[in-house]
Amino acid sequence: MTRAVEDWLAARDADTIETLKDFCRIPSVSTDPAYNGDVRRAAQFVVDRLTEAGMPVVETVETDGHPCIFAEWIVDPATPTILIYGHYDVQPPDPLDKWQTPPFEPDIRDDRLYARGASDDKGSLLIPLVVARAYAQVHGAPPLNLKFLIEGEEESGSPHFAPTVAAMKDRLTCDLVVSADGAMWRADLPSITVASRGMLALEATVTGAAKDLHSGRHGGSAPNPVRALARMMASLHDDDGLVAVPGFADAATAPDPAITDAINDVAFDVGGYFDGIGAPRPDPLPDSATLLTRQWLVPTLEFNGISGGYAGKGTKTVIPSEASVKITCRLVAGQDPDAVCEAIRAHLAAVLPTGYAMDLHRHGPGSRAFALDPDLPGLRVAEGILEELLGARPLRVAMGATIPIGSVFDEHLGAGLVFFSFSTADEDYHAPNEFYRLSSLRTGQIAWARLFDRLGGGPS
Amino acid sequence: MTRAVEDWLAARDADTIETLKDFCRIPSVSTDPAYNGDVRRAAQFVVDRLTEAGMPVVETVETDGHPCIFAEWIVDPATPTILIYGHYDVQPPDPLDKWQTPPFEPDIRDDRLYARGASDDKGSLLIPLVVARAYAQVHGAPPLNLKFLIEGEEESGSPHFAPTVAAMKDRLTCDLVVSADGAMWRADLPSITVASRGMLALEATVTGAAKDLHSGRHGGSAPNPVRALARMMASLHDDDGLVAVPGFADAATAPDPAITDAINDVAFDVGGYFDGIGAPRPDPLPDSATLLTRQWLVPTLEFNGISGGYAGKGTKTVIPSEASVKITCRLVAGQDPDAVCEAIRAHLAAVLPTGYAMDLHRHGPGSRAFALDPDLPGLRVAEGILEELLGARPLRVAMGATIPIGSVFDEHLGAGLVFFSFSTADEDYHAPNEFYRLSSLRTGQIAWARLFDRLGGGPS
Repeated sequence: MTRAVEDWLAARDADTIETLKDFCRIPSVSTDPAYNGDVRRAAQFVVDRLTEAGMPVVETVETDGHPCIFAEWIVDPATPTILIYGHYDVQPPDPLDKWQTPPFEPDIRDDRLYARGASDDKGSLLIPLVVARAYAQVHGAPPLNLKFLIEGEEESGSPHFAPTVAAMKDRLTCDLVVSADGAMWRADLPSITVASRGMLALEATVTGAAKDLHSGRHGGSAPNPVRALARMMASLHDDDGLVAVPGFADAATAPDPAITDAINDVAFDVGGYFDGIGAPRPDPLPDSATLLTRQWLVPTLEFNGISGGYAGKGTKTVIPSEASVKITCRLVAGQDPDAVCEAIRAHLAAVLPTGYAMDLHRHGPGSRAFALDPDLPGLRVAEGILEELLGARPLRVAMGATIPIGSVFDEHLGAGLVFFSFSTADEDYHAPNEFYRLSSLRTGQIAWARLFDRLGGGPS
Repeated sequence: MTRAVEDWLAARDADTIETLKDFCRIPSVSTDPAYNGDVRRAAQFVVDRLTEAGMPVVETVETDGHPCIFAEWIVDPATPTILIYGHYDVQPPDPLDKWQTPPFEPDIRDDRLYARGASDDKGSLLIPLVVARAYAQVHGAPPLNLKFLIEGEEESGSPHFAPTVAAMKDRLTCDLVVSADGAMWRADLPSITVASRGMLALEATVTGAAKDLHSGRHGGSAPNPVRALARMMASLHDDDGLVAVPGFADAATAPDPAITDAINDVAFDVGGYFDGIGAPRPDPLPDSATLLTRQWLVPTLEFNGISGGYAGKGTKTVIPSEASVKITCRLVAGQDPDAVCEAIRAHLAAVLPTGYAMDLHRHGPGSRAFALDPDLPGLRVAEGILEELLGARPLRVAMGATIPIGSVFDEHLGAGLVFFSFSTADEDYHAPNEFYRLSSLRTGQIAWARLFDRLGGGPS
């Protein structure tokens, strides 16, 4: 029974919201070195919360990038041990002018907390920290052995996380990894994620002349890298938007039939999807299964940003010296990030027009896709709690997005991983006006309290 | 004889350089409203120079944009009248990080003055202002009737210049227009420009979702406007880089045979051209006539800048809400900017994929191509002076770039126009590290002094 813990948490609801606001005030943007000091402050914030929760061991683990935070409370070696994962870094806040309130000045409207990082992942990460503290305050200790490993580079592709896990593997042994990251699919439909796509991040830069040229004087005779890049980009997809790079998906394996079954079971409102993201409905509209399959189970190559030449107001009659495009691929089971990178490199080199130079830069190592063991006991416990609290058996779904750590714990610790996040996919993380439902903050605390209890051997 | 005037100018060489530096310190970027106050200061600078030159009439002519400066000195109604054209606005200075010294802090290195606008067009514009003053100081008046019309929006496509000329046409009557704008083709080969390409400036914006989306969560299912725009852009040219828009060049007329003769007479060093702009040499290398024809006589559609999504350091896993590209076309004789705009609009609308919206914005009215009467007497006078000073008969060449005013004076005043600029095309105008040769400043003053004298009826 977790009654006393739940009461303690409920009584401190206002304090917890204030704590989350404090967390969200720290602009811990990991991808931009300008924020390095803030990322460090966010790490210290996590250290302080773990210390406040009474964890006997709390350590800042330095990496070649931003640090990880490790914490441990072994209450009884005979009791199960869980390792809790999350991240304290956030996405960049651009475009700033699209925010209704400043991204790092948390604002509550309609029981939602608006701030960069509120949903991804500070809100959902704060929950197990608060629940651990509740157990310490109410019962003197948690009902199972707790370990935490919280990273600060998830939004940068986790370049140093796998080496850190590998180096610390003897200290990270556990029976189950529980991730506080990895949002629920929909706010209106309980779900639990059992697979996620992998990731590869690249940046291609095409160079023509050594400097910008006058587009009148040189137009028609000089190389225009924007033109070259656009033609190269156009060769990366077919008319249906599927990746057309030779060899790109050769190693992809067939998806888990349980997920394709789920896709066929859900009557997804495709028209409503396009309305919801504010895009014109394509004609013809894809059917539900096609759309979900492409969102969950088909590898992608998306352009995240493009730049080259004059971007100010008005016109500037230049032929740019260079143009570049940021690319991220989402990979499915079987695809190796290294092999996919080489396939793209070979294709781009083959379509590079004469008279240009190209550089293909890889951002971070990327990660393979992840698929959870469908029979994992911890998964069934988590599903039971969600059903109690949300009123319906959660659907097992795949995730189009990537949890870079998905495959890392499996490889180094041999431990299964359950996603137990209370963020939902509509909360505009990675976009302006990111928000977190305060109702999720409350439900999540009860859920984690019960998860600790059940996994620790309490009544189910 | 202009000996006394030339001596006066030579004695004041250091002062003139200082004046040019003062002019270049004013960041008169016409295309960006942030610089509006500076553009106004540059206009006043021109007023001050004309007043200092003793012009009896000096007026600031307001427009719906930046003002024109008109000045007039009628020494004798029976004497020829020239109208001198130039512009006091400059290109934007971006990319700032490529400048060796700040763009608006003029720096002299190797007898070159480095600053934004030094070559285009402040250096060459200052020359007739200084020469007018020299005549006033030495002889009490210029040797012919002088009018000036100096604009402040040349780098923005001169949106208000034609209406201004139309409105003032009775005051602008003249025997010849002499342009201080319009650079010489090469520093090592005297030339005079007898044709220039017209211009059309557009900006195409493609929108998908109403906001940026998470590229993992939505990748594969949501519209990606960067992908759509790249495919649309790729359809605008053929494999040879020639414009592939239906109807684009339907109205183009055959070029003047005199210019094609000149193209065939000049052994242009094509390999050296690519080396000079710092671009990889294409393989195979085009021949001399092909390259010059495409630079002077073939209409173009160049991408001047592209943007969409994340442009900061590192990666950001978004699907951008929109992407846009800035386009300028250079038009040849016969092409109408309006018709070309509509051809491009129709083509882009036809290739816009389903599920996206597009906006095509036109920056300014654009301008038709210009071709000078080859038998214009003033042209022969200008050629004679250049031959005296530069040691060789100048080649009559076409210009890939646009002098927006090219066709305006012909239409409204019925007057021929001679380009008499002492900028040269290698001076990196429209690029970082723009410079002006101080030797050109000196030669140009002698040339303009003789031009005044000869056109006024002095000994040739």
